[in-house]
Amino acid sequence: MMHSVTAKAPSSTANLGPGFDVFGLALDAFYDTITLTKQKSGITIITNDSIPISPAKNTAGLVVQYMQKKFKVKSGVQIKIKKGVPAGFGMGSSAASAAATAVAFDKLFGLKLNGNTLVECAGVGERASAGSIHYDNVSASVLGGFVIVRTKPLDVIKILPPSDLRLVVAVPKMIVPAKKTEVSRSVVPKQVPLSNSVTNLSNAAAIVAGFVQKDSELIGRSIQDVIVEPARAHLIPGFGSVKKNALKAGALGVTISGAGPSVISFATKKSNLNKIANAMKKGFASAKTDCTVVICKPSSGAKTI
Amino acid sequence: MMHSVTAKAPSSTANLGPGFDVFGLALDAFYDTITLTKQKSGITIITNDSIPISPAKNTAGLVVQYMQKKFKVKSGVQIKIKKGVPAGFGMGSSAASAAATAVAFDKLFGLKLNGNTLVECAGVGERASAGSIHYDNVSASVLGGFVIVRTKPLDVIKILPPSDLRLVVAVPKMIVPAKKTEVSRSVVPKQVPLSNSVTNLSNAAAIVAGFVQKDSELIGRSIQDVIVEPARAHLIPGFGSVKKNALKAGALGVTISGAGPSVISFATKKSNLNKIANAMKKGFASAKTDCTVVICKPSSGAKTI
Repeated sequence: MMHSVTAKAPSSTANLGPGFDVFGLALDAFYDTITLTKQKSGITIITNDSIPISPAKNTAGLVVQYMQKKFKVKSGVQIKIKKGVPAGFGMGSSAASAAATAVAFDKLFGLKLNGNTLVECAGVGERASAGSIHYDNVSASVLGGFVIVRTKPLDVIKILPPSDLRLVVAVPKMIVPAKKTEVSRSVVPKQVPLSNSVTNLSNAAAIVAGFVQKDSELIGRSIQDVIVEPARAHLIPGFGSVKKNALKAGALGVTISGAGPSVISFATKKSNLNKIANAMKKGFASAKTDCTVVICKPSSGAKTI
Repeated sequence: MMHSVTAKAPSSTANLGPGFDVFGLALDAFYDTITLTKQKSGITIITNDSIPISPAKNTAGLVVQYMQKKFKVKSGVQIKIKKGVPAGFGMGSSAASAAATAVAFDKLFGLKLNGNTLVECAGVGERASAGSIHYDNVSASVLGGFVIVRTKPLDVIKILPPSDLRLVVAVPKMIVPAKKTEVSRSVVPKQVPLSNSVTNLSNAAAIVAGFVQKDSELIGRSIQDVIVEPARAHLIPGFGSVKKNALKAGALGVTISGAGPSVISFATKKSNLNKIANAMKKGFASAKTDCTVVICKPSSGAKTI
């Protein structure tokens, strides 16, 4: 009988410009690793990272609590967490922990859950960081690839990205406020002009067509957001320069990764990715901000290792 | 040398629920037929239908005027128009005339224009009826199949629909106001809650995925619009009953066709299409309105015959 399972789950980018709260894409830039081990009772969290270790305040802890209850699992669980995804930078850090936990729990207790159920379970973990449940990052982190999230009821569509798609992520070195996601959400307008809604919808539709038809150029030129990005840009030092520089260096599209402050460029393997990376670095430098730049590609989903 | 060309173009449905001003789908329900014949000079319009015959007020006339100028064509043109698409019912009637005209003109003068240019030329004809240019119907009517329209710049993406997709269109017998499109547009809110924008975008994204992945069920269950349909429903007698009845009879999704008042049900060839048609008829009858019901499927685009 299985005693311990380790799973890893990838980072992810949400929104992809116009697809606020709907689109997610798993990225092989960073991974979280979670090891679940059966124990007599209760939930114990072990980690060297500076995250809460109370199960009720920890992403992985919340997922285990929820799955224990939902699937009537009596066993206690020790959770060992190794963070690889930087927390609070719009790279789906809590989603990665939640996704890896759900997949490890499923395997440890032989539940054989389907993708939608794993997403639902992992989504519970998002509450710890985001305050409310959003499925864009967790869906990508659990299932891998590009995802479209419909809710009421939860209905996640997964699409395999084009194999030539490449991304350049710039993660600025800055102090992220404790309630970053709430702040980022608070600046987004509650009401939007219908014309903006139509513009974003047409771009989002084109992005979906690009993913299904494996057309990275179409994806790139459709990464245009007239609602959320303009409202959030001021939260990111030098965003305008980062974007302008990256486009000039050949990026097909540039936008904020999730709630930010990371900025993501869309390109193909034929692009000069190092040139784009340097251009983004210079953009942040112009606002006296250092950044880490990662060239990456779409990732498969969470899996046991 | 060619002296005369006849082209026919299909009816179309715009919006498909959430895709206001972005989505169009060509339907083989009805066709307009346009014959262009070279003449010494000027534009002459011949028709037995009750439509304006002044070129500046006639859809086909506007397209010919525009294309003569744009492509420096000196020859005069006689335009013979045979309407098959009912005008003013949300079935893309003016778009069909415009599409057939653009395609016939292209052939008659050997221009060999590409799809985007034909769409742009046909779009000019929409001004005659809609007051402003919208490319959803004309794109579908010119190119056939399912289209996603991005503007600024015009960028139309065409997708071949699933072969099992079937539609049931109910065209109510009612007096349509002369400025129907303007009225229908005036009731649509100028500002929308972001949450509604997100809901429509997620449904629209799923519709695109459904078309590309040839999944009629996914298309059908994503035909859900929380912005335009609720605002326009009151303009259509018995809309609530028509929709409820059709869904009960097995339709996968039901919405207003374009600016209405036609109502369209999405189904597959396995659905009981006659049952859906009768259910829609009963829905209109409950509001003391008769209707014509057409069972149809996606169409290819405008072509010379």
